[in-house]
Amino acid sequence: MKASFKEVELSTRSRVELIDITRQVEEHVDQGSIRNGVCLVYSLHSTTAIVVNEHENGLLLDIANKVQEDFPRGRGWRHDEVDSNAEAHLASSFIAASRIFPIREGRLVRGTWQNIFLLELDGPRSARHIVIEVLGE
Amino acid sequence: MKASFKEVELSTRSRVELIDITRQVEEHVDQGSIRNGVCLVYSLHSTTAIVVNEHENGLLLDIANKVQEDFPRGRGWRHDEVDSNAEAHLASSFIAASRIFPIREGRLVRGTWQNIFLLELDGPRSARHIVIEVLGE
Amino acid sequence: MKASFKEVELSTRSRVELIDITRQVEEHVDQGSIRNGVCLVYSLHSTTAIVVNEHENGLLLDIANKVQEDFPRGRGWRHDEVDSNAEAHLASSFIAASRIFPIREGRLVRGTWQNIFLLELDGPRSARHIVIEVLGE
Repeated sequence: MKASFKEVELSTRSRVELIDITRQVEEHVDQGSIRNGVCLVYSLHSTTAIVVNEHENGLLLDIANKVQEDFPRGRGWRHDEVDSNAEAHLASSFIAASRIFPIREGRLVRGTWQNIFLLELDGPRSARHIVIEVLGE
Repeated sequence: MKASFKEVELSTRSRVELIDITRQVEEHVDQGSIRNGVCLVYSLHSTTAIVVNEHENGLLLDIANKVQEDFPRGRGWRHDEVDSNAEAHLASSFIAASRIFPIREGRLVRGTWQNIFLLELDGPRSARHIVIEVLGE
Repeated sequence: MKASFKEVELSTRSRVELIDITRQVEEHVDQGSIRNGVCLVYSLHSTTAIVVNEHENGLLLDIANKVQEDFPRGRGWRHDEVDSNAEAHLASSFIAASRIFPIREGRLVRGTWQNIFLLELDGPRSARHIVIEVLGE
């Protein structure tokens, strides 16, 4: 069994933003020697999430708007007494900051309309870090 | 280390519907030779999710109703300008299209009230595909 | 490849409560011999979830309040006809009862503000069980 790691650093430009990282994930799978296993995409931040869906610009706006509607900013959250981003922590807690994928015959397994995104919830930030781990044989 | 894959094809009959796939997942674990590891249940679609909970018919209705209430259809979503199923993509993004389980001593580890379901969000569809991967030793 | 398991038993004291289990998870990783792999934290209950975020007391109150607002108790759920905890099952279904982490060079990979919590949704309970699995090389 082997494990290989890649760390991706990204900057974000808006408070809430989706950044497609499918290419970076697939490159790490393609460049490695693991034929069958899993690929874990893990964001190291408590105010981001990882989501999987279609890369269609209208949909990306819908996701960004929906997360802000469901987790409204400045709504008297207790955490806002020590910081001003409780809504971002809440969304990250519920949506989760990671997703995992099969690897089969050297390829990442995903559907045609399943791209992988970092969901920034408290941007803009100069450096967000995502760990991409491939584990298998 | 070994990995083994099974693809399950299912048809769905309603717009929103839960289909219990616990038996298919456990059969794949039971028929393989992996004693300890993990089992990844991964749906290849951006308008489905995988959820884990009790198989009680009232609860399944509650889940189907709640997801439609939280992700309402035709509410002026931008993605509806190119397709008419933004609400299904949003629910899939937030809930996630996969779940992962331990395998211990040849058995899938799950609680008494934890069955595994495909959550159809944009049905009916003639063919939905789920990858069941067992990885371990 | 090796897999090692630890089962953690916890009691909970409130209906909705977050219990930090980061120490128990890290101890299991630190005490084992696996250098690179993954750590799966899996709750065996359909009325709990596992979440990852900052251990700040105001935020923990926000998470507990938000989950009760989003999944309100006694709102005419169908499952309440057979039990009285449909809201807990719904939250567990959507948030998920597990999270998975990389293990790299013998350490659990997580961000500075990413602690691991059991989210009790139907307490108090005398015994909740969580499986911590380390899988790798």
